[in-house]
Amino acid sequence: MEAIQTPIILVNFKTYIEATGKKAMLLARKAERVSHETGTCIGLAPQYTDITEITRSVDLPTFAQHVDPIDAGSSTGHILPEAVKQAGAVGTLVNHSERRIRLADIDSVIQRCRKLDLVSVVCTNNTNVSVSTATLEPSFIAIEPPELIGTGVPVSKAKPEIISDTVSRVRKVNPDVNVLCGAGITQGEDVTAALKLGTKGVLVASGVVKTKEPERVLTEFAEAIHTV
Amino acid sequence: MEAIQTPIILVNFKTYIEATGKKAMLLARKAERVSHETGTCIGLAPQYTDITEITRSVDLPTFAQHVDPIDAGSSTGHILPEAVKQAGAVGTLVNHSERRIRLADIDSVIQRCRKLDLVSVVCTNNTNVSVSTATLEPSFIAIEPPELIGTGVPVSKAKPEIISDTVSRVRKVNPDVNVLCGAGITQGEDVTAALKLGTKGVLVASGVVKTKEPERVLTEFAEAIHTV
Amino acid sequence: MEAIQTPIILVNFKTYIEATGKKAMLLARKAERVSHETGTCIGLAPQYTDITEITRSVDLPTFAQHVDPIDAGSSTGHILPEAVKQAGAVGTLVNHSERRIRLADIDSVIQRCRKLDLVSVVCTNNTNVSVSTATLEPSFIAIEPPELIGTGVPVSKAKPEIISDTVSRVRKVNPDVNVLCGAGITQGEDVTAALKLGTKGVLVASGVVKTKEPERVLTEFAEAIHTV
Amino acid sequence: MEAIQTPIILVNFKTYIEATGKKAMLLARKAERVSHETGTCIGLAPQYTDITEITRSVDLPTFAQHVDPIDAGSSTGHILPEAVKQAGAVGTLVNHSERRIRLADIDSVIQRCRKLDLVSVVCTNNTNVSVSTATLEPSFIAIEPPELIGTGVPVSKAKPEIISDTVSRVRKVNPDVNVLCGAGITQGEDVTAALKLGTKGVLVASGVVKTKEPERVLTEFAEAIHTV
Repeated sequence: MEAIQTPIILVNFKTYIEATGKKAMLLARKAERVSHETGTCIGLAPQYTDITEITRSVDLPTFAQHVDPIDAGSSTGHILPEAVKQAGAVGTLVNHSERRIRLADIDSVIQRCRKLDLVSVVCTNNTNVSVSTATLEPSFIAIEPPELIGTGVPVSKAKPEIISDTVSRVRKVNPDVNVLCGAGITQGEDVTAALKLGTKGVLVASGVVKTKEPERVLTEFAEAIHTV
Repeated sequence: MEAIQTPIILVNFKTYIEATGKKAMLLARKAERVSHETGTCIGLAPQYTDITEITRSVDLPTFAQHVDPIDAGSSTGHILPEAVKQAGAVGTLVNHSERRIRLADIDSVIQRCRKLDLVSVVCTNNTNVSVSTATLEPSFIAIEPPELIGTGVPVSKAKPEIISDTVSRVRKVNPDVNVLCGAGITQGEDVTAALKLGTKGVLVASGVVKTKEPERVLTEFAEAIHTV
Repeated sequence: MEAIQTPIILVNFKTYIEATGKKAMLLARKAERVSHETGTCIGLAPQYTDITEITRSVDLPTFAQHVDPIDAGSSTGHILPEAVKQAGAVGTLVNHSERRIRLADIDSVIQRCRKLDLVSVVCTNNTNVSVSTATLEPSFIAIEPPELIGTGVPVSKAKPEIISDTVSRVRKVNPDVNVLCGAGITQGEDVTAALKLGTKGVLVASGVVKTKEPERVLTEFAEAIHTV
Repeated sequence: MEAIQTPIILVNFKTYIEATGKKAMLLARKAERVSHETGTCIGLAPQYTDITEITRSVDLPTFAQHVDPIDAGSSTGHILPEAVKQAGAVGTLVNHSERRIRLADIDSVIQRCRKLDLVSVVCTNNTNVSVSTATLEPSFIAIEPPELIGTGVPVSKAKPEIISDTVSRVRKVNPDVNVLCGAGITQGEDVTAALKLGTKGVLVASGVVKTKEPERVLTEFAEAIHTV
């Protein structure tokens, strides 16, 4: 089940201490159980240092949180797409709000991912930027209005028209790009709402990682998917 | 022998494809053999994704190539010092010429490293910047004149006075900081020259990683250390 | 004639010493003479410190080389769009290859320019990025393949299909955006070729600024425009 | 009186709309009146676009808010030290908390300033970084604890030991560097306190620019200087 299916719940581990090292592995195992029990695709985006270990032990598609637009060589301290691939990742987040990159680099990274058979999930902040990104043919676009990230107020409730507009305008430009939505998702009904607005899944972080019961929350999200 | 001893040969894997994934592990094992056979401290600075695997399997002190000046939390795509520590690294390069950081961040990273018991190896480009860095009390300073990196022309030959000046001026400001030198080192005699100028070792990259016989080169470097 | 007309010759002064301070003013006056004598629109993009003086004394549309995506406030050292406007500029370059910005910032800057009635000239490196940018509705797109900048090899000769493809694909996405082309333009025939490929003008720098006879070169460019 | 004297009151105009364009000129004239009436050195750091006009019309030493560590050439959108000099500035802020730069660039900018006979005022965030900076021999160090900027709580009251420690440790490393202090200064007594702690003046921004009576506030600051 390492292949990606939609709808997908993609969990960004960020640099949360609750999702670093051994705790990253524990969280990954919980996600794996929920995925298998509910038959739902759950993707994981742990820190670079945890990718190898997780992809070896856990049967879920794993993503890097970022890759640099570089070729192999003299780029000390940077993230080589090939390194992420060899570590077992199936894809990468690109242009997350906490790691925005330049337009020319988004183009370059999407192309590098395509050549390496890595799934690209490009994060965007609004409808315009989503449409602009869609022309570059990423695998996924994950729209996250920055003002809602970490608030617990889901974009699907606060600004549903942003999601539906993005889905319809992205489709016109490029029907092959799947739209995810993120920011503020904490309950099953937020996931349901996101799917009903036309998205193919959700990008979550604190709503799963920082909760005391990530397994319960992920189960709620997974079951919400199957009610749509 | 995971503890760091001086003189040290510190090998920066950069993002060379010859030092990524499985090839990183192969190179690490070769370095381990040389270290054990010659009784020389060899440090490794592989890519983030390879740290966990190498520190588990190879009995050499391992370094990250960079860490970000962040606390755990919302820093998607960044390098958390705690993550590097949990992956088994004993230290990190800081401010490499291919990953320069801001002055306030060098100060912050050195302090974060100290708290986490990580060795900080701060790279510098000239004597002035080395002295400036020494006041911040890093574990090591590695001076690498950028114009010599990757050239095969060793700083110890091209500009020996840069090394000796740096060593003496750094000592005045902070006698506890060890100075390494890098850039252009490809032969045993370059290592010998570096030590004679007062350094406690060398920071090497292409001279080891890009050669066809890294084991032979490392052995030459290690033996050169023991002639001083 | 401060209003912008197409075809336009837009001269980027960069940070050339030959186009700084008093020399910037001399160059601006030469461009003004050519503009008036040939009836051709010539735009100037001097350094920030020279904008006020040039817009007061010279009757040509003047552009900033960059603005930051900021609102007025605590942004020491940054470029406030309102400051550029008050200095007399009619527009600004955005995302020049020597000053690339993030995708979300390109979107933000284009919108800020629209509100302030500033013309936005967004620089791009290839056709994909041009199309992506066109969806954000800038005033102009200036495509400059980075590998040709400063070479004296004009993109209109080396890679004419890049220009014609860009023009046609941009038009499909947004027929209101004018395309300029840059990189390597040194002769009248380069300008002619650019216009024949569907562009509305050229973005030039060293080809004018670094020549001994900028007035002669600009005249050649201007006359080339009128032959099309 | 364009030459710099200490104690100095250095006013950072930031990108405040109240200190942009014509309003920058009005503020500069008010500062000039206070300077002349009280015999106090007041320096101004307006936006780049306002430097030329202010230095022509106002008899006060004027600073850029930042310069880039570049030589003349292909650096579109960047700040050339020579451009700032030709515009009439006598110096520049360096490494302001809103425009931090890399350590190697601080070194490079200080040296560029020295060659161009520009005064360098390097901003720092704590004592360690101030000492580190002092070894690079800038003209001034302006310490501004970031957590106090814009608060109205003066560092001289909240953390007086930071100022006195900085002054004494900087002196040991380099007795030629003058220390200024900034952050939270709104009253004459804050200025008095700063000088008594060993500084040679203050760096102020909102406390002057955002007040309704900048002339009254500056006069209060100036008179406070003369009471020490």
